[in-house]
Amino acid sequence: MAEYITIRSSTKEQFIDITGLVQGVIDKMGIKDGLCVVYVPHTTAGITINENADPDVIGDIEGHLDKLVPGSGDYRHIEGNSPAHIKSSLVGHSVTIPIESGKLLLGRWQGIFFCEFDGPRARQVIVKLIKEV
Amino acid sequence: MAEYITIRSSTKEQFIDITGLVQGVIDKMGIKDGLCVVYVPHTTAGITINENADPDVIGDIEGHLDKLVPGSGDYRHIEGNSPAHIKSSLVGHSVTIPIESGKLLLGRWQGIFFCEFDGPRARQVIVKLIKEV
Amino acid sequence: MAEYITIRSSTKEQFIDITGLVQGVIDKMGIKDGLCVVYVPHTTAGITINENADPDVIGDIEGHLDKLVPGSGDYRHIEGNSPAHIKSSLVGHSVTIPIESGKLLLGRWQGIFFCEFDGPRARQVIVKLIKEV
Repeated sequence: MAEYITIRSSTKEQFIDITGLVQGVIDKMGIKDGLCVVYVPHTTAGITINENADPDVIGDIEGHLDKLVPGSGDYRHIEGNSPAHIKSSLVGHSVTIPIESGKLLLGRWQGIFFCEFDGPRARQVIVKLIKEV
Repeated sequence: MAEYITIRSSTKEQFIDITGLVQGVIDKMGIKDGLCVVYVPHTTAGITINENADPDVIGDIEGHLDKLVPGSGDYRHIEGNSPAHIKSSLVGHSVTIPIESGKLLLGRWQGIFFCEFDGPRARQVIVKLIKEV
Repeated sequence: MAEYITIRSSTKEQFIDITGLVQGVIDKMGIKDGLCVVYVPHTTAGITINENADPDVIGDIEGHLDKLVPGSGDYRHIEGNSPAHIKSSLVGHSVTIPIESGKLLLGRWQGIFFCEFDGPRARQVIVKLIKEV
């Protein structure tokens, strides 16, 4: 079964640490060893893994993505949110993390971040667990 | 078993919607619940997920990738197609999507796009399904 | 079980071909068909797949990432290594590759590259294999 997590972004762009929510799904499902896939079913949001200790790291990633994909340019898409679409394809729509002894094998400084690029709005994240046989 | 899909690009750069072809493999293999990995065994092509409603979204992604990775620059690679190599590493060579009740858990506006960066040519895409136990 | 590979980078930025090490884990574990996830538990390193024939391809990817994410800029993170953090989120922290008949289904010219962005240092790479049932 896939588990659904609802997230509410509060600003246009926002990286939200969902590590605890994902680990919570693993705890609930009782998986010991396998794979965890965190999937974002949206086209103007993505997901990435990076440092969760100094918030300036995430701030710098958000800021630099704005430099790489400016808010205004010769975009054609009628809704005017092409930067959000482009950024979501640059960071990606899923992360895959090994599970061992019931824990995500994240590195010491790693967190899982839902990347809102066109908020604020309610979003879903899908957590799919594959048990190792 | 891995299933192979052959795709033929018709221009140098082209994003090709392969969602139906991937769902077709799931239907053929009869998988109900699990994971779908779509893998691109090339170095000048990639794969991404984004909006399949307004074609200008994909057009804006292609156009902006050209801005980020210009066709000419101080590249060394003798074949002269380094922009295609760089873009493929930026978008990535695989996507992983949960399957439930025989369907890809894509978002309402999501499609799977093969990203040709050095066409036109014949390409392969590998679809690997993992059944949930 | 997850297998751990130790890698030692020797310069600040370095792409290290780890294809043979990953295939070695598959050989050791005796997996015939399934999925191979190569996961990087770091926040200033990543992993990508690209050409392993002409070393200038990897050189051009490294060089262009430096253009996209310059070493100095208005970064806030106190450690001063934000470019490494940003690059790791651009290339990603895992790759997922199908396995068939005991072999990674890499394309003819593909290699798996550990991407060091803040070396030199000792790093770990996690290889997780999922057996197809």
